[in-house]
Amino acid sequence: MFLKKIKSEGLSHNSYFIGSENEAVVIDPRRDCQVFIDIAQQEEMTIKAIFETHRNEDYVIGSIELAQRTGAEIYHGSKLDFKYGQALEDGQEFFFGKLKLTAIETPGHTDESMSYTLADMDTSEKPIMVFTGDTLFVGDVGRTDLYGPNEAPRLAEELFDSIFNKLLPLGDEVIIYPAHGAGSVCGGDISQREESTLGIERTLNPVLQKKREEFIKHKVSEHHSRPTYFLKMEHYNLEGPPIFYNLPIPRPLKPKACWEQMKQGAIVVDTRKPPAFGGAHIKDSISIWLERIPSYAGWILPYDKPILLVLEDKNYLENAVRLLYRLGYDNITGYLVGGIEGWYKQSLPVEHFGLLSVHELKRRLNQENSLFLLDVREENDWEQGHIPGSVNIFSGYLQNRIKELPKDRPIVVICKVGNRASLGASILSQAGFKEVHNVLGGIIAWKNAGYKITKL
Amino acid sequence: MFLKKIKSEGLSHNSYFIGSENEAVVIDPRRDCQVFIDIAQQEEMTIKAIFETHRNEDYVIGSIELAQRTGAEIYHGSKLDFKYGQALEDGQEFFFGKLKLTAIETPGHTDESMSYTLADMDTSEKPIMVFTGDTLFVGDVGRTDLYGPNEAPRLAEELFDSIFNKLLPLGDEVIIYPAHGAGSVCGGDISQREESTLGIERTLNPVLQKKREEFIKHKVSEHHSRPTYFLKMEHYNLEGPPIFYNLPIPRPLKPKACWEQMKQGAIVVDTRKPPAFGGAHIKDSISIWLERIPSYAGWILPYDKPILLVLEDKNYLENAVRLLYRLGYDNITGYLVGGIEGWYKQSLPVEHFGLLSVHELKRRLNQENSLFLLDVREENDWEQGHIPGSVNIFSGYLQNRIKELPKDRPIVVICKVGNRASLGASILSQAGFKEVHNVLGGIIAWKNAGYKITKL
Amino acid sequence: MFLKKIKSEGLSHNSYFIGSENEAVVIDPRRDCQVFIDIAQQEEMTIKAIFETHRNEDYVIGSIELAQRTGAEIYHGSKLDFKYGQALEDGQEFFFGKLKLTAIETPGHTDESMSYTLADMDTSEKPIMVFTGDTLFVGDVGRTDLYGPNEAPRLAEELFDSIFNKLLPLGDEVIIYPAHGAGSVCGGDISQREESTLGIERTLNPVLQKKREEFIKHKVSEHHSRPTYFLKMEHYNLEGPPIFYNLPIPRPLKPKACWEQMKQGAIVVDTRKPPAFGGAHIKDSISIWLERIPSYAGWILPYDKPILLVLEDKNYLENAVRLLYRLGYDNITGYLVGGIEGWYKQSLPVEHFGLLSVHELKRRLNQENSLFLLDVREENDWEQGHIPGSVNIFSGYLQNRIKELPKDRPIVVICKVGNRASLGASILSQAGFKEVHNVLGGIIAWKNAGYKITKL
Amino acid sequence: MFLKKIKSEGLSHNSYFIGSENEAVVIDPRRDCQVFIDIAQQEEMTIKAIFETHRNEDYVIGSIELAQRTGAEIYHGSKLDFKYGQALEDGQEFFFGKLKLTAIETPGHTDESMSYTLADMDTSEKPIMVFTGDTLFVGDVGRTDLYGPNEAPRLAEELFDSIFNKLLPLGDEVIIYPAHGAGSVCGGDISQREESTLGIERTLNPVLQKKREEFIKHKVSEHHSRPTYFLKMEHYNLEGPPIFYNLPIPRPLKPKACWEQMKQGAIVVDTRKPPAFGGAHIKDSISIWLERIPSYAGWILPYDKPILLVLEDKNYLENAVRLLYRLGYDNITGYLVGGIEGWYKQSLPVEHFGLLSVHELKRRLNQENSLFLLDVREENDWEQGHIPGSVNIFSGYLQNRIKELPKDRPIVVICKVGNRASLGASILSQAGFKEVHNVLGGIIAWKNAGYKITKL
Repeated sequence: MFLKKIKSEGLSHNSYFIGSENEAVVIDPRRDCQVFIDIAQQEEMTIKAIFETHRNEDYVIGSIELAQRTGAEIYHGSKLDFKYGQALEDGQEFFFGKLKLTAIETPGHTDESMSYTLADMDTSEKPIMVFTGDTLFVGDVGRTDLYGPNEAPRLAEELFDSIFNKLLPLGDEVIIYPAHGAGSVCGGDISQREESTLGIERTLNPVLQKKREEFIKHKVSEHHSRPTYFLKMEHYNLEGPPIFYNLPIPRPLKPKACWEQMKQGAIVVDTRKPPAFGGAHIKDSISIWLERIPSYAGWILPYDKPILLVLEDKNYLENAVRLLYRLGYDNITGYLVGGIEGWYKQSLPVEHFGLLSVHELKRRLNQENSLFLLDVREENDWEQGHIPGSVNIFSGYLQNRIKELPKDRPIVVICKVGNRASLGASILSQAGFKEVHNVLGGIIAWKNAGYKITKL
Repeated sequence: MFLKKIKSEGLSHNSYFIGSENEAVVIDPRRDCQVFIDIAQQEEMTIKAIFETHRNEDYVIGSIELAQRTGAEIYHGSKLDFKYGQALEDGQEFFFGKLKLTAIETPGHTDESMSYTLADMDTSEKPIMVFTGDTLFVGDVGRTDLYGPNEAPRLAEELFDSIFNKLLPLGDEVIIYPAHGAGSVCGGDISQREESTLGIERTLNPVLQKKREEFIKHKVSEHHSRPTYFLKMEHYNLEGPPIFYNLPIPRPLKPKACWEQMKQGAIVVDTRKPPAFGGAHIKDSISIWLERIPSYAGWILPYDKPILLVLEDKNYLENAVRLLYRLGYDNITGYLVGGIEGWYKQSLPVEHFGLLSVHELKRRLNQENSLFLLDVREENDWEQGHIPGSVNIFSGYLQNRIKELPKDRPIVVICKVGNRASLGASILSQAGFKEVHNVLGGIIAWKNAGYKITKL
Repeated sequence: MFLKKIKSEGLSHNSYFIGSENEAVVIDPRRDCQVFIDIAQQEEMTIKAIFETHRNEDYVIGSIELAQRTGAEIYHGSKLDFKYGQALEDGQEFFFGKLKLTAIETPGHTDESMSYTLADMDTSEKPIMVFTGDTLFVGDVGRTDLYGPNEAPRLAEELFDSIFNKLLPLGDEVIIYPAHGAGSVCGGDISQREESTLGIERTLNPVLQKKREEFIKHKVSEHHSRPTYFLKMEHYNLEGPPIFYNLPIPRPLKPKACWEQMKQGAIVVDTRKPPAFGGAHIKDSISIWLERIPSYAGWILPYDKPILLVLEDKNYLENAVRLLYRLGYDNITGYLVGGIEGWYKQSLPVEHFGLLSVHELKRRLNQENSLFLLDVREENDWEQGHIPGSVNIFSGYLQNRIKELPKDRPIVVICKVGNRASLGASILSQAGFKEVHNVLGGIIAWKNAGYKITKL
Repeated sequence: MFLKKIKSEGLSHNSYFIGSENEAVVIDPRRDCQVFIDIAQQEEMTIKAIFETHRNEDYVIGSIELAQRTGAEIYHGSKLDFKYGQALEDGQEFFFGKLKLTAIETPGHTDESMSYTLADMDTSEKPIMVFTGDTLFVGDVGRTDLYGPNEAPRLAEELFDSIFNKLLPLGDEVIIYPAHGAGSVCGGDISQREESTLGIERTLNPVLQKKREEFIKHKVSEHHSRPTYFLKMEHYNLEGPPIFYNLPIPRPLKPKACWEQMKQGAIVVDTRKPPAFGGAHIKDSISIWLERIPSYAGWILPYDKPILLVLEDKNYLENAVRLLYRLGYDNITGYLVGGIEGWYKQSLPVEHFGLLSVHELKRRLNQENSLFLLDVREENDWEQGHIPGSVNIFSGYLQNRIKELPKDRPIVVICKVGNRASLGASILSQAGFKEVHNVLGGIIAWKNAGYKITKL
C-alpha cells in the first residue's frame, strides 16, 4: 500500500494519492494536477478513480483535467447535481489493488459531503483509515455556515450526527486524513499537528467534548470569513473549470511596459513582504504577500482584468502563478522585470508607507489625537481583543466600506501581524488616502510589548 | 509539529525527524546523515538530541557524525555499555518545542531496546504517538534470536511483556512508528502498509493474537537469517564507527585498470540484474543486484579488500556507494568505466550463465538425470515448499559449504525470484564450477506455472 | 548576452536559446519545448522569434507549439513552401535586446538552408558568432544526398559555395554553433569536441582542406543512412506536427495485460542493453537500447500500432517516451510493470539469445561450417573492414530483406559494438529464426583481440 | 572532449572543468568544491590535476580540499613561493585523455600569472583554446595595481607583452576562457558577453586597440577598489586555507537568542534588499544584500566575531553561507528564525530609514539647506559624474572616515542604484547618526529623471 498526502500550502489543503499494486485513486486533486501524474509514474500506477469529498469552495478542483489525462473516473456525493462525474451511494465500495474504499455520506459541512474509509484487505476488511474531507479535522470540525444562518442549525445537527454516528463508531484506532490542516479558511482552530486518529479526536478534540446541543450552539455562533471568490469556486466546481494543461506564462515586462498596462486597467499585485512594500512600491499597487495569496487574493482581485505581479525574486514567479491559478485566476499576464529595483531605477513613481513599530504606535497614540486606528482583522478576532479606540473593518470589506473612513486624518492600519494591514493600507493608498501607516507585528507585537487590550 | 520519516530503502529502515518550534530530535539516524541536516535547515530547526532505539545490528548508525556536526546530544537505553552518548532512565522525559518525548524501556528484541512516546503538549500530555524501534512493527514484532537460542525464551517473554504491559496500554488511538518496514531482515512478516495504531495492531497483528505461551513458542521457533556483517555493525554501533563526512569517491577505472586491480585481489561486484549478469559478466565477478545490496552484500563481501563495482548505468554509482557505506563498506575504490560494454569492447574475458525459464528447467529435469538443483533460499523457506529433488544451501553459507557440491554435474541454482540464485551461481562460477545456471523467476514462477512443490 | 545550447542526446541535435535584455530567440526548438519556456522564465525573457535553419529531417521540430505558448513568430528560409511561419530574405536583420541576428542563405544541405550570424551591438556590428545549422559542423560539413543522387552534385557545389563564399569570409575569429554534434545521422565525422571557430574549421576541418572539385567528389561519393522515418519528419516539419502540450502518458501494464495487447498487434520495444536482452526477453519483442532509440527506432517502428515498452528501470520511462516523441511516435500506450522480472515471475514465455564474445565467435567460426555470419552495419562500414565470410545487410533493411537469410543455419549477428546486432537478432527471432546469436563488442572487440579483418 | 564553466555568481569568477576519456583537470577551483566532484562522477572522470592561473586575491581557492578528496596534483606558476602544489615551467605540457594543456607564463596581473592553452590532439597539436586567468578578459584586461602604484608601470608593461607577444600570436581563431566575467572586481569593463576569441579581442577589445605606451598609461591611471579582505585571501591562497569539507551550519536563532548574541558582540548582517531593510530592520544591523555579499562583505565584516544573518527567505540560507564561505568567513554562527517578522512580532527594537525616490531627493535638496548628501560610490565613479554638492566617501572606507560626517544634519546616502547606499546608511545608523536616508535608484534613477550631474 502506498499513501501520499499532497499539500497545497497557504490553502492548507490536502489531496491524497492512494495506491496498491499498480492501481491508484486520488482524493480531491488540486487544479495543477501534474503532481499526481508524476507520482503515478514514479509508483508505476494507473489512476483509476478520483473521489471528491464535496464541492470545494476554496479552490478550483482538478478532477476533470486529471481524468482527461489519465482516463480515471470521477465520483462525488449524490446530494448535489454535479455537471460531471458520477454520484455515489452511501456504502458504495470500490476495490483497487488490495484496498477497499467505502463511501460514507457525512453531511453537515455541505449536503453532499462524503467521507471515505479504507481497508487493507491484506490485513482485514475492517477500515483502518478514513478520509474525512471537511467533516472532521485534527482538533476541529468543518464549518456549517456556508448555506447562510438559516441553514446553519440544520447543518450543525447533521455534522454532529455524521461525526458521532458514522465516523467515531469506526473505532478509536482508525487514522484520520482530513482535507485541511492548520491555517485553512475552512476551519478556525485546526491543530498544527497533522497526525491523528478517531480515538485522539474523540478524547482530545475540544469540539467533540461538547454535548449535542452545545455542539450545535457552538457551530451556529461561529464566525468564519467567506471570501468573495467562493462564488466563483462553487460555480467552477459544479460545472467544471477551464482546462489549461500548463500554468499560464506571464510575460516579463519592463517598467515602462508595466506602467502602460496599468494605465489600460491592469491591476498590479505586489507579492513582497510588508516591510519591503512599505519601504517602496509602485503607486496604486496592491500588497498581497506571496504566502498569503491563498488567503487574501480571492477577496480583492478581479477575474476580468489583467493582473501584473511584482516579485521579491524572479524565482517566485511560478509559485505566485500557481497559487493564483488554484483560485481560478488565469488572467496573470505579466510581471515586472528586475522587480521594484527595476522600477525605481527608471525614476518611475514610487510610494512609501509609514511602517510603525508597536512602540512608535504607542507613542503616537499618546501624543496625537487625530490618529485614526483601523483594525482590519475579522470581526470576531477584533471582538476578542483590540487596541482601545480602534475601529474594525475587515480587509476583505475595505474596498466597499472605504467611505466610512476619514480622508483628513492619518490612518494607522493594524492586523494580527502586519500582512493584512499592508493589504489594507495599499487599498487606502490606492483610494487616495494620503497618510497611511502599517503596524509591523500588529496585535501580536502589541501584546508582547505588554500594551493594553480591550475586549468587547 | 513536524514529523518526517526517512526511509533507507533495501534495509527498510526508518529514521524519524521530529520537530516543533525550531527544535528537533532525530530517532535512529542513518550513517549518511546529511539528510537530517538538510531537513533541519529547511524547517529552521536545531537538532537538539538523537535517540537510539537500540544498538542496531543491520546498519551503521550515524549518531556520532550527526552529533559532531550539529551539537546534538546522543541518548540510548541503559542496559548496554555504549562507548558514546548518555544512558536514559525508564520514564525519562525530554521537552522540545511544544512536544514531550518519554523514554520507555521495552526490552525483548535486545536488552537495551527503548521505545519513545510523544505527546503534543498543545493538545494534552497524553502520548499520541510511539516510536517502537524493533519492538513492534506493523503486522509483526521484533526478532528475539540475536543473543542465540539459549536467550531466546527470555527475550521472547520480555518482548511480550514490553508490548502487552508497556505499549498496548498507551491506548488504541496511539499511532505507531517502527524502525522497520516490509522487507527488513529484522522482521519476517512486516506489512507492506506503513500506517498503523496500537489499536490496529492489538486487534489485527497476527502475533499479538497469541497468548503469552503461544507467543513465546512462536518466537523461539522462528528462523531468521543473521548475516555475517552483523558482528561488524554491533561493534561499530557500540564503539562508534569511522567518520567520513562525505561518501567515499570510487575512481572510474578503464577495463584494463580494473583487470589489474582484480589480479591484486580486488573483488568485483556486478550490480546489474540477473538477466544482464547471466548474459555477460566479468569472469570471477560477484552478482549482487543494486537493490539487494542491503540484503546480500553483508553476507559475502569482505571489509579488508578493495571493492570494484560494475554498474548498469553510471548514475547508479552514488546509490551503490551509499548502500554499501551504510553497511560499513568504506573500501569501494573504483568502478568500471563504460560498464560491461566497456569491458567486452576490449575483448577482455567475459562469461555467461545459462538462464533458464521455469519451463526450460522443467523440461531439463524431465530429461537429464545429472542436473543438480541447488536451492539457495533460507532454510525455512525451503522447508515450506521446494522443487522435489532440490538441495538447500542458503546463499549466505555457500562460500563455506561449496565442497558439498558436485563439480562434475551441471548445477541449476534457484531461489525465490532469481536474484540470490544469480549471486549463488556467481559464487559457484568463481569457485571453478563450469556449467552453472540461474532460474529466472525462481520458485514464484515455478508455482505460477503450476509445477509441483514438495514440503518437508 | 545570454546563450545556451540545448542538446537532444542521441539525435546529437542542438537547439539554441539566445537572449539579451529580456528578449530572446530560439533556433531550431525541439518538439518537447517546455525547456525553452523554463529558460525564458529563469532569465526573465520573452521569446520573440523562432528561427529554423532548415526543414529538419531527423526529428519533429517544436516551433508551432512554442510559438502558440509564447506568442513568438516563426521564421524559415524562403526556398521551401512551409505551411507555417514566415519566409526570410537573404541578409534580413532581426534585432532583440542588444543583439543583431542576420539571416544568410546557405543552401547545400537543403535548398532552404539558412545560417544566422549574431553581432553583439554593445561591442560592434561585426558578427562574432554564426549558427550554421546543417551547413558546417565541427570537423565535417552537412550531407548533400537528401534529394537523391541526381541532385547531389548540385547540392555539393552549393554547399561548397555557401561555406567558402558566405561563411568563411565572416572571419577566422567567428565562433560557430552548428545544429549537430558527434553521433548525428546528419554528418558522418563530426568531432567529439563542440567548441570551434571558422578559423579552426578553415585550417583543421579535413573536408575544408579539399579543393572545390575534390570537395564535390567527396560529397557525392559519401554514403549516409536515410532512415525510413525521415519521410514522416519531412511531412511534419513542412505541414506542422500534432500538438500535445505534454508528453504522452503510457500506462503501467501488468504482464498479462501486456501479453493481451501484444496479441492485438501491439509492438513491444525492449529498451534494455544487449546483455540483458540476450539473457532474457519477451518472445517477439524488438531490442532497441534506450540510448539508441534516436538512431534505430525510426527505421523499425510503425506509427500506426500501439508501442509497449520494457525498461531496465521504471525511472527511464520519461526518457524513453521523450526520445520516441521527438521522432513523432505518439502511440506509446503502455509499459511493462516490474520490467522483465515481472514478466518471468508470471512464467510467461521468455526467450534468450546466444551472446558470444569475440573469442567464442572465433572458435566457432574455426569449428563450424554452418555458421552464417551476418554483419548489420551500414554498407560503407562493412566495405571498410569486416570479418572474412560475413554477409552484409544493414539492420534498417533487415525486415525487408529477411528472405535472403537461411532458416536452417545458426545465424551470428555482428555490428560495431553489439547494439544494432541485438536489434538485428531480435528481428530475426521475431521472424522465426531459431538459432540466433549476438556478438558482444562486435567488430571493435574483434579488432582489439587482433583477429583478422578483410576490406572490400 | 568535455568542457564546463562553473560560475561563482557575484564574484563573477569562472572555474573550468576539462575532461577527455575519463581524465580531467580543473582550473581555479572554488572553495566549495563538491561541484567538481559531482561533475567528475557524472562524466566518469578522475580529476588528475588542478591548475591555478595565479594566487587569487578575491576568493579562497579550493585546490587543497579538492586535491585531498580526489588525489589530484596542484600546479601553479613558479614566480611565487606557494606553500603547496608544484611550480610549472613556461611551456610545460600536460597530457590527459586526448588533450594537451600547455602552461604559458603571462605575468602582468601578478608575477606568477599563468595562462593555459589546450590542444585537441584528435584534431591537431595546435592550441584551439586558451584559459587566460586574469590576464585577458572579454572586453578588458587584468588589473595591474595589486602591487601598489610603484609596481604598476612594470606590471602594465609585462601585461602588454604577455597579451601581445604570448597570447595574440596563438591565432585569431583561438577561443578564450578567462577567470572572470562582467561584474568582477578584477576588471572594470568586462563585457556582459562571455564568448570570445583572440581575434575578436584583438580587433574589438578597446584596451587592445591602444599602442604600448598608451596601454601602459591607461593601466597605470586606472582606479580599482581593493577590498580589505584581499589580504586574508592572499594569505590563504599562499599558505592554504582551513579545510571544512562541508559548508558551516548556522543555527536557527529565535529573536531573543539573536539579541543576546548581539549583546555579546555578534554582528548582524541583514541580507534583504534595500527597500525591505529601509522599511524595518534590527537596530545596529548591517545591510548587505545577498547578491552583493561577494562585493561588499569583504570590506566590512570581521573574521573574528560571530556573524548572524537576517534573510528574506529561509531558503536563501545556504546561498548566503556559501557566498561568505568563499570569502573565508567560517564564522557564521546563526540566523534569525522567522526573519524580520519574527523579530518585530516579539516587539524587539526595530528601526527604519528614510527611503527617498530621486524626485523626493530633488524636492528636498531644493528646500532644505541642512541636507548632507553623501555619495558612497568609488572615487572614480564619483569623479565621472555626481549630484552637485555631494561629498564622496566610498562605502568601504566609511567605518574609518565616519568622523568626517556631521552628526547634526540629516544625511542622505546615495550610490549607483541603492545597495551600497543601504550599506552606508546602516553603518551610519550603527554609529549613532539619527536621520539617515537612502536614495532608491541612486545616480541611475537621478540621471533617468533628467536631473543635473556635475563632473569633476
